Amino acid sequence: MKKKRVAIDMDEVMADALGKLIRLYEEEYKVPIDREKLTGYYLEEIVHPDNRSAIRRYLYAEDFFEDLDIISDSQAVVKEMADRYEIFIVTAAMEFPDSLRPKYRWLQKYFPFIPWSHYVFCGDKSIILADYLIDDHAKNLVNFSGEPLLFSSPHNAQETRFTRLNNWQEVAHYFLSDR
Amino acid sequence: MKKKRVAIDMDEVMADALGKLIRLYEEEYKVPIDREKLTGYYLEEIVHPDNRSAIRRYLYAEDFFEDLDIISDSQAVVKEMADRYEIFIVTAAMEFPDSLRPKYRWLQKYFPFIPWSHYVFCGDKSIILADYLIDDHAKNLVNFSGEPLLFSSPHNAQETRFTRLNNWQEVAHYFLSDR
Repeated sequence: MKKKRVAIDMDEVMADALGKLIRLYEEEYKVPIDREKLTGYYLEEIVHPDNRSAIRRYLYAEDFFEDLDIISDSQAVVKEMADRYEIFIVTAAMEFPDSLRPKYRWLQKYFPFIPWSHYVFCGDKSIILADYLIDDHAKNLVNFSGEPLLFSSPHNAQETRFTRLNNWQEVAHYFLSDR
Repeated sequence: MKKKRVAIDMDEVMADALGKLIRLYEEEYKVPIDREKLTGYYLEEIVHPDNRSAIRRYLYAEDFFEDLDIISDSQAVVKEMADRYEIFIVTAAMEFPDSLRPKYRWLQKYFPFIPWSHYVFCGDKSIILADYLIDDHAKNLVNFSGEPLLFSSPHNAQETRFTRLNNWQEVAHYFLSDR
């Protein structure tokens, strides 16, 4: 039987971009970010307006995506999923063209069991043909032709339109338990 | 009415990679490539076996994809198509990770009317959801869910499974004439 195909987003799903942004911001401005204020918001929206452009500056830096931490349990769960599903990594990398090479290296390093033929670096994810898409952005899920799955991130806390998976344990339960 | 979506391959369809490979080979080995011998073959298959690895070496060079010539008429025809269709550029860039940034720059330079949100750098093109795919590789067309269109290149001369478009004038006729 043909394996079902699962497309998985990178940032905030596999790679902790938000964690690095917070760290860089706290280092530069010497003020702690109140994590609770992030519920329902992007980091840019809760920092001091004068410092907002710093977030973009971090994201556009050539090495930003090079050394992001891995979101807890994503490696182990994706590895197990890869036996039962056809896994594609789908990331909206085009907004940050300097991220293309670092994102490729990051995937090779941390998810070596996913072949490069199954990487997709794109912009508009409505081009993706898959059975499932795990993503933290509603805008990517809303036009998806398969089953959309919202991976929880502070900014999407108020989103209610999609099946929500709060963490990789819930992803494992959704895809790997014998339902 | 929703515009139909056309996915277009880059190398050998929009960008003349073969032309540059031939030029580099002829410069290095001081032997002319007999273009007629290319019918039904890749360049690697018709050069002296001792020199075959040079072709891979050219492709993997960091600047190879930076300055490819544009395939005749592709700019003008794609620009006209962009009024009537939703255009995505879909290129199997992952085999040559150093090509990612050069390919992005090349598209920005020569096809500035296609937004970066409509670039897709991938490996396996079966992930693409579009109404049409214009590509020179049968392997990309064979699993495509929409209407596959073979763009002629010497290597695919014997391929008969797909509707063939020999050049951009024929692409224009297929998509832009009021059929």
